[in-house]
Amino acid sequence: QWTLLDWKPKRPDMLVDAFDFGRIVQDSLVFRQNFSIRSYEIGADRTASIETLMNHLQETALNHVKTAGLLGDGFGSTPEMSRRNLIWVVTKMQVLVERYPSWGDVVEVDTWVSASGKNGMRRDWHVHDSQTGQTITRATSVWVMMNKHTRRLSKIPEEARAEIEPHFIERSAILDEDSRKLPKLEDETADFVREGLKPRWGDLDVNQHVNNVKYIGWVLESVPMPILEDHELCELTLEYRRECGRDSVLQSLTGVNARCAAAAPPETGVECHHLLRLADGAEIVRGRTAWRPKPPRSPGEIAA
Amino acid sequence: QWTLLDWKPKRPDMLVDAFDFGRIVQDSLVFRQNFSIRSYEIGADRTASIETLMNHLQETALNHVKTAGLLGDGFGSTPEMSRRNLIWVVTKMQVLVERYPSWGDVVEVDTWVSASGKNGMRRDWHVHDSQTGQTITRATSVWVMMNKHTRRLSKIPEEARAEIEPHFIERSAILDEDSRKLPKLEDETADFVREGLKPRWGDLDVNQHVNNVKYIGWVLESVPMPILEDHELCELTLEYRRECGRDSVLQSLTGVNARCAAAAPPETGVECHHLLRLADGAEIVRGRTAWRPKPPRSPGEIAA
Repeated sequence: QWTLLDWKPKRPDMLVDAFDFGRIVQDSLVFRQNFSIRSYEIGADRTASIETLMNHLQETALNHVKTAGLLGDGFGSTPEMSRRNLIWVVTKMQVLVERYPSWGDVVEVDTWVSASGKNGMRRDWHVHDSQTGQTITRATSVWVMMNKHTRRLSKIPEEARAEIEPHFIERSAILDEDSRKLPKLEDETADFVREGLKPRWGDLDVNQHVNNVKYIGWVLESVPMPILEDHELCELTLEYRRECGRDSVLQSLTGVNARCAAAAPPETGVECHHLLRLADGAEIVRGRTAWRPKPPRSPGEIAA
Repeated sequence: QWTLLDWKPKRPDMLVDAFDFGRIVQDSLVFRQNFSIRSYEIGADRTASIETLMNHLQETALNHVKTAGLLGDGFGSTPEMSRRNLIWVVTKMQVLVERYPSWGDVVEVDTWVSASGKNGMRRDWHVHDSQTGQTITRATSVWVMMNKHTRRLSKIPEEARAEIEPHFIERSAILDEDSRKLPKLEDETADFVREGLKPRWGDLDVNQHVNNVKYIGWVLESVPMPILEDHELCELTLEYRRECGRDSVLQSLTGVNARCAAAAPPETGVECHHLLRLADGAEIVRGRTAWRPKPPRSPGEIAA
């Protein structure tokens, strides 16, 4: 075991200032970084939001590339990619949440990459509670390359493949992956619609495009309050179909499965289908979410 | 100098996992915590957003109370406050931003409290770049107590005063404070209006109320794009006048000063006045922001 990270405390009294910028573990193929959950990352349930969990996935992906010495001049692009104006775009993301962490918990995120077909890269994550070892989330994603000027997808150039392939490791975070086709929601099949969603200035990333994680917020905008109140999101699949720019205006559609109609008792799980689309009908993101009843609060827990 | 925080690395190889949960410094009256800026905390300008900077202020305020051993069963309330169902609410916040930090920068946040009139507490912050020592932000705020059931403001009970007063230190982060009265914006004086703003589920805090920091996002919703694109926020004053609940629908109004009309050259600074109000006209937040032209990118900086 070795690390590419040359981290040294400068003074003994600075130990407490130490930051976890992450490091390579396990035969140099897995990147690991810890995060403490901050007060502003928790919501009404006192647990981290799904956006927070997904932000940690994004952060480790970028730091993995950086720590492996593969950061070109872009936001996660390798040198050979940057030379060709190529950027990574995510096409699919699946996240399973076993337990939501609370304020002060420290989560340990492991991430690694492997091949996905001929022109894709797969990135997986396994997140544990660093204290108990309990699994928090498992996630997998598929990435392809896009030319940042033409915005067209690209094959992986051989030179870029040579950069990333040595980092591939065959290992799946999710054994039983969700490969069911996501149905297309239509006005007739949607139960809830929320219109007029616009990126805020703060939603834009360095490419002036909406950050992947923001989409989940928009998906949840059309999930009815009773589901949000009584259930917690336990499975999430998103298919990214088209870019959303700074001037896009979106509609968020949600279809709720029969078994979770308003009349169903709260102990029932819920499955939803989602669509984010532009006013002209162009699909931005298709999604599926599964929800389970919220766990009862543990007795020692702080009351609101 | 001493610390209330009993932090010890468990194993030498865990040093790199060390987290900065903060500590008391300077005669036990100043609380200090470091934060590294994460990739998902930066925006289109590649620098931390104003929300991120304010989140760090919130986090240190809570951790200060916690580390001082004063955390009752609430979210920042002391034991004597919790016993009386009292919570802290912020009535005013002023933030000066000298420089926005970038991804990977580590910022050092100092915070301390003092009296504010008879029934208020003042909390100040001074944020430095931990590497260069350069000031990033200075901020001050005023807090009062509210009964969480009646939602009415309360005097500070003597027992609670006895808990907090030993922690007071007379020192101001901002020498030249903004004490100008904030004018009330009306439909006639507002240049830009954005309607239909609703809290998302994820915007609610553990009291099912909208977190203080979220308001700045709504304020910015009515700031026109040319100001956001060409300027950076350098001064922010918010007066919180009324709570916003989960079902509130807000309007965001912005009035832009004459000297920064559309025709003005971008090197001109801009001042705006803001109002967040309910549809019935009830005022939630009054604000003032000042903007300066964005600094040119440094030559060594990463291109998009």
